[in-house]
Amino acid sequence: MVVRPSEFALIERYFRPLAADPGAFGLTDDAAVFVPKSGEDLVLQADLITEGVHFFAADPPAAIAAKALRVNLSDLAGKGATPVGYLLSLALGPAWTEDWVRGFADGLAADQERFRVTLYGGDTNRSANGLTISIAAFGRLPAGSIVRRSGAAPGDIVFVSGTIGDAALGLRIRQGTIDAMPAGKAADHLLERYLFPQPRTELAPTLRRYATSALDVSDGLMGDFAHLCRASKVGGELDVTALPLSAGARRLADHDPSALTTILTGGDDYEILATVPEPDADSFAAESAKTGVVLSRIGRIVADAGPPVILDHDGRPLRFQRLSHTHF
Amino acid sequence: MVVRPSEFALIERYFRPLAADPGAFGLTDDAAVFVPKSGEDLVLQADLITEGVHFFAADPPAAIAAKALRVNLSDLAGKGATPVGYLLSLALGPAWTEDWVRGFADGLAADQERFRVTLYGGDTNRSANGLTISIAAFGRLPAGSIVRRSGAAPGDIVFVSGTIGDAALGLRIRQGTIDAMPAGKAADHLLERYLFPQPRTELAPTLRRYATSALDVSDGLMGDFAHLCRASKVGGELDVTALPLSAGARRLADHDPSALTTILTGGDDYEILATVPEPDADSFAAESAKTGVVLSRIGRIVADAGPPVILDHDGRPLRFQRLSHTHF
Repeated sequence: MVVRPSEFALIERYFRPLAADPGAFGLTDDAAVFVPKSGEDLVLQADLITEGVHFFAADPPAAIAAKALRVNLSDLAGKGATPVGYLLSLALGPAWTEDWVRGFADGLAADQERFRVTLYGGDTNRSANGLTISIAAFGRLPAGSIVRRSGAAPGDIVFVSGTIGDAALGLRIRQGTIDAMPAGKAADHLLERYLFPQPRTELAPTLRRYATSALDVSDGLMGDFAHLCRASKVGGELDVTALPLSAGARRLADHDPSALTTILTGGDDYEILATVPEPDADSFAAESAKTGVVLSRIGRIVADAGPPVILDHDGRPLRFQRLSHTHF
Repeated sequence: MVVRPSEFALIERYFRPLAADPGAFGLTDDAAVFVPKSGEDLVLQADLITEGVHFFAADPPAAIAAKALRVNLSDLAGKGATPVGYLLSLALGPAWTEDWVRGFADGLAADQERFRVTLYGGDTNRSANGLTISIAAFGRLPAGSIVRRSGAAPGDIVFVSGTIGDAALGLRIRQGTIDAMPAGKAADHLLERYLFPQPRTELAPTLRRYATSALDVSDGLMGDFAHLCRASKVGGELDVTALPLSAGARRLADHDPSALTTILTGGDDYEILATVPEPDADSFAAESAKTGVVLSRIGRIVADAGPPVILDHDGRPLRFQRLSHTHF
């Protein structure tokens, strides 16, 4: 029989070191305190990931930790919020080991430093079934400055950060469901993008300054663009030739017609989709570049509030069976 | 094949009506906004419950909803915080039905009215395994007034709210692991106490005014009292004859020697354990009674920081194999 540490020992050894803020009381109490600054709003968000749906049980524990935290930070970034901290609820399946928990906590520690957030509390449980990780993250921003989905106006330019489709293609490579297999570094990049989303935290202040609407692309570019257009009561046109694609994604798109559908509807991108009034577009792109985030202009908001479209190389709308992947 | 609604349809039909605060944006955005009041601290807390560990899959969905929310509200109450809202992350197992979700949301709606809280956000997922519900709840209190575990001082009187052991005995009745079966209303009461914890939300202001330390009893009275004593660097003595027991619990304790161990270490009580300076004890009890919460004096804090004890009818310390039940 493997002797495993108690819940309290796990918290003391692996999670207490992550709870540096005095308001977390070193995880020795039942709740944490956060002292909001006057003139700031608090932005709250929760996302849960579960084995066999959002990640593979055999993924490295640090990668699972990174995904659990980053999908939350990405949502905050899309709203213009600076992340502050998070609560972690962990349900460990029957086969958990102390080594796994150590690797998981190491992954959180690395990301805490990278994204300047800290653990405020949560709980550790046994699960009769698989591993589940639930995180509630909170951030702050000047009062009233949250960037909603609903402010896009006709004429606004549509931007997206980074490159699109990498993670969904990485997942297809892992699942072996794509014919044209990229090799070497290009494949590694796509696999890495599936494992390690890159929340665009550094973009938050620029979004607050310029964006009329924004969200992070998690369900798929077309599906999330449709959400944004519906919330803003507008339509939109994207241009497939303007899509920012990584080298690996471009090669797959050139060789396998199903790859483009995956790129546009597969999700797990965790890039920022934002709209900006046309006169501000150049400044928005230039200021974003200074923060290290590359933005691409991919389309325009139109007044006709029908479903948004993406135009192919010949200017004809592409059609999809569904606009987004759903983990549901 | 059963046609089941999409994630978006579920949110729109069942969860949007629970999100009344303008800061929740009717669950149409990626995050919620909470505007803290100047001079107040925010208290944050998260607890996850999972099928087969914290509840039975066949429990009524409204009872599962109530347990998921109330275990969080109980933690806030024990810290002296007034609850405000919560984020809900739901992972539905393969066999979920729309009826189940409706019953679950109805349970949340009833509790939102009862405890004056509102849904701020969260997410709905599919689970490859069992049902998991994760809630992060937040409350507010005047700046600096959180009631910690760590302020108990020698001479303080130890109080507990309500009655102790009911839920853990109710669970044993369901599991059929107790010999002396109570019948009729007494058994119903114990089963009800397992299904429906009663967070002592109304006690929060009184705790802030009088308590030197407090927590909610979730792991078991002896285990949680040990946590409080350790955090406060003191010891404590409880008196078994002073324990508040319901009629059903008393009958079981009279007929089955194992029942007393369950009462003292079984957990799931969600009653408040608090310490108060002796000169304030009468006022504390009187003011609590005005809020409808009955408190019992069950012991005293001592300077000797060894493990706390509970004395039997002859004044001898009772011994336990372990001080608390663990869901871990």
